[in-house]
Amino acid sequence: MHHLLSENVQSGDWKNEKHVPVIQAPANVKKDETFELVISIGEEIPHPNTFEHHIKWIKAFFKPEGAKFPIEIATVSFDAHGESDIYSDYFGTVKTKIQGSGTLYALSYCNIHGLWENSIPIVCE
Amino acid sequence: MHHLLSENVQSGDWKNEKHVPVIQAPANVKKDETFELVISIGEEIPHPNTFEHHIKWIKAFFKPEGAKFPIEIATVSFDAHGESDIYSDYFGTVKTKIQGSGTLYALSYCNIHGLWENSIPIVCE
Amino acid sequence: MHHLLSENVQSGDWKNEKHVPVIQAPANVKKDETFELVISIGEEIPHPNTFEHHIKWIKAFFKPEGAKFPIEIATVSFDAHGESDIYSDYFGTVKTKIQGSGTLYALSYCNIHGLWENSIPIVCE
Amino acid sequence: MHHLLSENVQSGDWKNEKHVPVIQAPANVKKDETFELVISIGEEIPHPNTFEHHIKWIKAFFKPEGAKFPIEIATVSFDAHGESDIYSDYFGTVKTKIQGSGTLYALSYCNIHGLWENSIPIVCE
Ligand SMILES: [Fe+3]
Ligand SMILES: [Fe+3]
Ligand SMILES: [Fe+3]
Ligand SMILES: [Fe+3]
Repeated sequence: MHHLLSENVQSGDWKNEKHVPVIQAPANVKKDETFELVISIGEEIPHPNTFEHHIKWIKAFFKPEGAKFPIEIATVSFDAHGESDIYSDYFGTVKTKIQGSGTLYALSYCNIHGLWENSIPIVCE
Repeated sequence: MHHLLSENVQSGDWKNEKHVPVIQAPANVKKDETFELVISIGEEIPHPNTFEHHIKWIKAFFKPEGAKFPIEIATVSFDAHGESDIYSDYFGTVKTKIQGSGTLYALSYCNIHGLWENSIPIVCE
Repeated sequence: MHHLLSENVQSGDWKNEKHVPVIQAPANVKKDETFELVISIGEEIPHPNTFEHHIKWIKAFFKPEGAKFPIEIATVSFDAHGESDIYSDYFGTVKTKIQGSGTLYALSYCNIHGLWENSIPIVCE
Repeated sequence: MHHLLSENVQSGDWKNEKHVPVIQAPANVKKDETFELVISIGEEIPHPNTFEHHIKWIKAFFKPEGAKFPIEIATVSFDAHGESDIYSDYFGTVKTKIQGSGTLYALSYCNIHGLWENSIPIVCE
């Protein structure tokens, strides 16, 4: 009985569990300087991409050190799952800038296996 | 230090805390019969709606009793926060049908105060 | 050969063509006073809702009389198309307020039959 | 008096008009082989990124030659516009695969200046 949605958000090691969103960003970035942030699923273990079973979106958030609330940076929505045999891979690169160190989070959704999350620290000077 | 995004999802009593998404649905619904589901924020205590501070979206999920994963039902995105003095209220009615009892969840996002959640049980016969 | 996406947006009479989004709003609203706006698809002629063929979203826009650009009011995304036999109907009620007369627009997307649109005038005093 | 939303979608040369979404993809791709698709705004002439004025999203579509309807490939939503001085740049790389030549489209939205579009042909063998 999980009364909270957040208790239903799953995590794990993305090298073993294909649903876990992977976050790639430089370990160190400069204050107020644009950097690339990659959010993806399934690069190690591919996830199905069919009408019946697919990843719908990945969201990226950032929470500055000492802050209370995560800020939404970007959402990448994967919209083609076989229409005319067109497929959207579960991969997105976005660009952002921040003002200090903190934590990058990713939240993703599989239409069969629900919500998954991951996070990495990022140092910003 | 919250390493998991899900540890940053806040909850509370919507009568006292203006960010908590409110879920309204019939206490009892019939199997495979469409019902209305209302997701909203701030009906008791209004939340600001300005360029600098506003609610961006509410998502609704459902998890059948005994199931492991929540299924996304609908997302309502509030897109106008003062453009030409047009405002989107934090209110959405959607329609859905389910096959058995379970839990309805809402997840919402304030651009300043982060992620909030709520849930209610629903009986389906 | 349609070089512009906008040339691929289809319209028609929603009573005969099931893809056309229907917009329902009061014919007259008061300046700066919240009103309900219903966007839906298929109330006259139902549209399929299967993994392979479904409506994904409807967006609502408003353009004040004399203004140049439409403002996005809300997006309703229909996310369940048979997962655990849960279905999202193509229906959303949102609430908004405006400052003067103009045109309400809806834009919707079927994963097989592409983009569709509709509009209605609204008088605001 | 534009009764159709599609008549309000603007286009132009992205080198002179900062709102026009830029689409970058290989001129030639292989059938059923993943390629990178970049959608962005403002690389030549930067667009403001403030609470009051910003780009909210870019959508990418593909229409195969001879097909009637564009298929949505991906949506990139830019969600941070100054919250804690965090900013989302108007840039997204996604990955997709197609089965034949056609047209790639982008549709984007500025909260002040409305809807904009662009397209490029893509050869697929
Ligand atoms: Fe899965
Ligand atoms: Fe708030
Ligand atoms: Fe259709
Ligand atoms: Fe603009």
